[in-house]
Amino acid sequence: MTSNLSGNNHSPLVGVIMGSSSDWDVMSEAVAILEHFAIPHEARVVSAHRMPSDMAQYAQTANDRGLRAIIAGAGGAAHLPGMVAAFTHIPVFGVPVPSKHLQGQDSLLSIVQMPKGVPVATFAIGTAGAANAALHVVANLATTDKALAEKLIQYRTAQTEMARAMRLEK
Amino acid sequence: MTSNLSGNNHSPLVGVIMGSSSDWDVMSEAVAILEHFAIPHEARVVSAHRMPSDMAQYAQTANDRGLRAIIAGAGGAAHLPGMVAAFTHIPVFGVPVPSKHLQGQDSLLSIVQMPKGVPVATFAIGTAGAANAALHVVANLATTDKALAEKLIQYRTAQTEMARAMRLEK
Amino acid sequence: MTSNLSGNNHSPLVGVIMGSSSDWDVMSEAVAILEHFAIPHEARVVSAHRMPSDMAQYAQTANDRGLRAIIAGAGGAAHLPGMVAAFTHIPVFGVPVPSKHLQGQDSLLSIVQMPKGVPVATFAIGTAGAANAALHVVANLATTDKALAEKLIQYRTAQTEMARAMRLEK
Amino acid sequence: MTSNLSGNNHSPLVGVIMGSSSDWDVMSEAVAILEHFAIPHEARVVSAHRMPSDMAQYAQTANDRGLRAIIAGAGGAAHLPGMVAAFTHIPVFGVPVPSKHLQGQDSLLSIVQMPKGVPVATFAIGTAGAANAALHVVANLATTDKALAEKLIQYRTAQTEMARAMRLEK
Amino acid sequence: MTSNLSGNNHSPLVGVIMGSSSDWDVMSEAVAILEHFAIPHEARVVSAHRMPSDMAQYAQTANDRGLRAIIAGAGGAAHLPGMVAAFTHIPVFGVPVPSKHLQGQDSLLSIVQMPKGVPVATFAIGTAGAANAALHVVANLATTDKALAEKLIQYRTAQTEMARAMRLEK
Amino acid sequence: MTSNLSGNNHSPLVGVIMGSSSDWDVMSEAVAILEHFAIPHEARVVSAHRMPSDMAQYAQTANDRGLRAIIAGAGGAAHLPGMVAAFTHIPVFGVPVPSKHLQGQDSLLSIVQMPKGVPVATFAIGTAGAANAALHVVANLATTDKALAEKLIQYRTAQTEMARAMRLEK
Amino acid sequence: MTSNLSGNNHSPLVGVIMGSSSDWDVMSEAVAILEHFAIPHEARVVSAHRMPSDMAQYAQTANDRGLRAIIAGAGGAAHLPGMVAAFTHIPVFGVPVPSKHLQGQDSLLSIVQMPKGVPVATFAIGTAGAANAALHVVANLATTDKALAEKLIQYRTAQTEMARAMRLEK
Amino acid sequence: MTSNLSGNNHSPLVGVIMGSSSDWDVMSEAVAILEHFAIPHEARVVSAHRMPSDMAQYAQTANDRGLRAIIAGAGGAAHLPGMVAAFTHIPVFGVPVPSKHLQGQDSLLSIVQMPKGVPVATFAIGTAGAANAALHVVANLATTDKALAEKLIQYRTAQTEMARAMRLEK
Repeated sequence: MTSNLSGNNHSPLVGVIMGSSSDWDVMSEAVAILEHFAIPHEARVVSAHRMPSDMAQYAQTANDRGLRAIIAGAGGAAHLPGMVAAFTHIPVFGVPVPSKHLQGQDSLLSIVQMPKGVPVATFAIGTAGAANAALHVVANLATTDKALAEKLIQYRTAQTEMARAMRLEK
Repeated sequence: MTSNLSGNNHSPLVGVIMGSSSDWDVMSEAVAILEHFAIPHEARVVSAHRMPSDMAQYAQTANDRGLRAIIAGAGGAAHLPGMVAAFTHIPVFGVPVPSKHLQGQDSLLSIVQMPKGVPVATFAIGTAGAANAALHVVANLATTDKALAEKLIQYRTAQTEMARAMRLEK
Repeated sequence: MTSNLSGNNHSPLVGVIMGSSSDWDVMSEAVAILEHFAIPHEARVVSAHRMPSDMAQYAQTANDRGLRAIIAGAGGAAHLPGMVAAFTHIPVFGVPVPSKHLQGQDSLLSIVQMPKGVPVATFAIGTAGAANAALHVVANLATTDKALAEKLIQYRTAQTEMARAMRLEK
Repeated sequence: MTSNLSGNNHSPLVGVIMGSSSDWDVMSEAVAILEHFAIPHEARVVSAHRMPSDMAQYAQTANDRGLRAIIAGAGGAAHLPGMVAAFTHIPVFGVPVPSKHLQGQDSLLSIVQMPKGVPVATFAIGTAGAANAALHVVANLATTDKALAEKLIQYRTAQTEMARAMRLEK
Repeated sequence: MTSNLSGNNHSPLVGVIMGSSSDWDVMSEAVAILEHFAIPHEARVVSAHRMPSDMAQYAQTANDRGLRAIIAGAGGAAHLPGMVAAFTHIPVFGVPVPSKHLQGQDSLLSIVQMPKGVPVATFAIGTAGAANAALHVVANLATTDKALAEKLIQYRTAQTEMARAMRLEK
Repeated sequence: MTSNLSGNNHSPLVGVIMGSSSDWDVMSEAVAILEHFAIPHEARVVSAHRMPSDMAQYAQTANDRGLRAIIAGAGGAAHLPGMVAAFTHIPVFGVPVPSKHLQGQDSLLSIVQMPKGVPVATFAIGTAGAANAALHVVANLATTDKALAEKLIQYRTAQTEMARAMRLEK
Repeated sequence: MTSNLSGNNHSPLVGVIMGSSSDWDVMSEAVAILEHFAIPHEARVVSAHRMPSDMAQYAQTANDRGLRAIIAGAGGAAHLPGMVAAFTHIPVFGVPVPSKHLQGQDSLLSIVQMPKGVPVATFAIGTAGAANAALHVVANLATTDKALAEKLIQYRTAQTEMARAMRLEK
Repeated sequence: MTSNLSGNNHSPLVGVIMGSSSDWDVMSEAVAILEHFAIPHEARVVSAHRMPSDMAQYAQTANDRGLRAIIAGAGGAAHLPGMVAAFTHIPVFGVPVPSKHLQGQDSLLSIVQMPKGVPVATFAIGTAGAANAALHVVANLATTDKALAEKLIQYRTAQTEMARAMRLEK
């Protein structure tokens, strides 16, 4: 059985965006997960602060371009996820990128504390959050794609097996 | 056009769970959103700490029972969302319930800082987060349900109109 | 000597905006200061999250409409000041509105931690910050308006006298 | 006089568990203390998130296997100690492992802020906490084991002597 | 079967101490748990700061008086649990009492961050922590008292049943 | 068109001050911006704590010396910006310099939480804040200087282009 | 034996100052202690921000006026204690007054994090800190005044007795 | 004129104590100040947790041994300054030593948040705090020692001159 989402010919289903190319070290973890599950995707720098019109346009056209989820990473006064969510109704997944002085505490609060009406699904600070945002997107897509669901279950099972195989350095 | 998810005859698609009946004041906001969008749902107390086997079973049977999302609210050492996510592959949406002494800062960190591999989509502390968790679930369901997408767009448009109509008390 | 900025006929020089009418209790302090100094101004609800296109347009047209400063108040994931600053080059002054659960700590970090290139001048959480944002705008305008500078000096002198007159309840 | 708990033939009395093998650097301090006091013990990776059923089973069988205490270390959204405590009535001792971005503040709150009814005894962040969790277990076991109590008193006395012998680098 | 610890004739096994009579609202929860399990106990004000010699003597004589655990609650610069632990080898259980301005964050850190060698088992801020400290003491005593273990299992089972019986106010 | 502020012959319009020469690594970013825009400026060490009379005099004479803005950076108990603002009515722009142990959280709160009546415009912790303080000064000056406004618009446009040109390391 | 500091005829030895008359509720605790010990003192509003020249003069003349200690209370960006310490070499004792939104966390950091060379002795947030600042001043004065030392010892002894007399509401 | 406190023959007037020899890197700054001012002093490791009886005795005999101030540094659950203050009426000056995971935030709160009646004068986290604690002791001693007061004024003046001489690396 093949996931009806995967394949090279498919136009992107998931957009992975970030405020700066310096966020790539974190956000590449999200891309790696999407690649593992063969989810067509794109990755771009879209700065809410330095290219706000592009950001607005990216969000406003996302649905028509066929995107079914946007994963947005940002640090500091991290407005990208929330503003993208303001300009589109497709679901947005936010990743707090660690900041230089406050270790991402500012990023986390700026992303998660959205007002009622404009949600951003938020994940952990840093690479764990980036990977998990992508895994959550996969889990949502899998609710209507049996092949993908199987693949996700396999991923989780393999993960369990790896944890079971861990040995302590005694 | 009718959403293929809505209707009274449908078995629940979304489970709304919480650690205690005292969380209802917060979590009822999630239920209100689901009702607005006519998403079949259920709401239950499932305590991770006081009834862990029930919690595990709830999560493990969720997929077979047809749930496509679980919204879990908890406060303090808020383990419910993360543990439910550990026992199922369907997407989990976490709501930090305000705690008595730390105002939900403990709840937020306990929910959002999940390790790589087991994601919980986290929302704002309190009622805004509960409503937004449900709105995010709706947004995910709407990616494969045009009628629901229309309804979501209408909701967002109405929200914009209401904001535009706001008057200052001068 | 009359300030060349004041007077009823003047179109607004300062825009006071806020994310919700519930922010008025805080932001009215900014308006009171502008009124004291007879600075032509306008006050509006412009929600970054619920009416983002209006927000973008407000910022993009501000300069042409003759605004010389924008005072923006917002709470929680407070994106309004930073996004307005992203869409205009005229100076933006941000006021962290106290939030329900985190007392404005989230608002403060969301506003002040802007990345290099898009500044928001940030003030104290709550009413003190709202008043001070307006006083700072006045101070900036006063650098090229002698009459306004005199008025500001008088305000500060009166403030000093009032502090000197304070009596302890012994 | 010999402690009635010690010796090689004894099955483990204390389980030392952790969420990942990367926690070993911290948790090995707990094991070192148990070895010093010749308390029969075992050390294992039991991840609450990646192998939740194993975790539940570990906790549920702990009492029948003769364990009299479980020391559990975890970082970030540290659910392991609290969930083990939910699945067993034997005492659980939690160690907050330092996390990458928040230095263990998330781990600490996730472990210590348990709701009424399901206690986790919590210790300091990092290696000091791991050692102290084990020392507290020893102190509890020593309340019904005179030889062990003597050994603990000796340990504490030696510690006092070492502190007294400390010289400043003047 | 009767717990070999319970009964009126028994001298106290557990000391519940606190820095001030104003801590009683919190610490009475610990006493209520001990009474439920019929654990002989005593409750006293022992201030580390205002009566340090009494505190030292209380700790130094605790073992000889037959105490097998000390539960100590304190707020602010909460030194009582740690100093009692410094003066005795019997296990100490600390309860952070909420403080006026910092909501017990200072109390928590002052109690939990003990250095290697002198452990204090720490519980949640406030009444939940007080009850849990006592429940943890019970769990430790129950490891060598079958009747008490049964009673603890019953308590936990009843707690599970009560959680299961919770109804949402829909 | 030439900015009427720029040129080598002009006496300083902006004072950049800092508590210690060790703040230069941060504050030099403000100077670099002012140099880019050819704003006449001066940079000095003026310690509020170690040379308070000089600080008072610097602030008191600033207006007469023709300064139209003061950018003040300080760390820890960062009193310099607020005290300069107390001694002058010209606008003060504060930069929280990262502190050794608290990463500038103390600096930020000491600068931003000014009482009503004496405003300090505050920017992000560290170099981003220093650059942004200067950019905000430029934006204020540009409101009455068309040539400078053009230059600022060019700067912002170039910044947008650079962000658009960012490539991810895929 | 009479303290050589006490008496009505003596000019003030201790200045108690605060940024606003609204700080009196907190700072009156310091005055009450000084009155108890019959230490000649004065209490005044001296705002660092609204009357900085008066503040500087107060500090600069303190030594010549015979003051041997200054107790300064302030809230928010609490610059008063540190700036007074910058303008005099006599010892300054700082009291963090609780702030409206951050509960005095900003006040505490603004007062305690002074740079090397200009010390402020800092005490707890609120009334406890105000009383303790005065008690510390008494303790310093008592090192060269036997009668005052006796009185302090009596005070401490009475305090111990009152703590011993505390009864729990059982 | 010679300070009546200085000289080699004098027995110690100031005790500098710390919880561990690892605190010496911080606390040696206090000793350096005392040496600069030729204040007779002693420096010792006195651990509140590992040698509590010695600590109590040190504090209880301090006055009779002629000490007029105790400077105490400690990290983490930093009980040393507060407990020494509990056992003596001579003034205690506390220095928060940076802790491994929480950077001294725990140390600061454990030291500064003392209850009414038992004051500890607290200084900044780390070396600045250690130096300032000693400078504050000097300032107190100088109130009754004119030669020392002169020396302190010279120190402050030299410090001002050094700050004035600072050059920026332009």
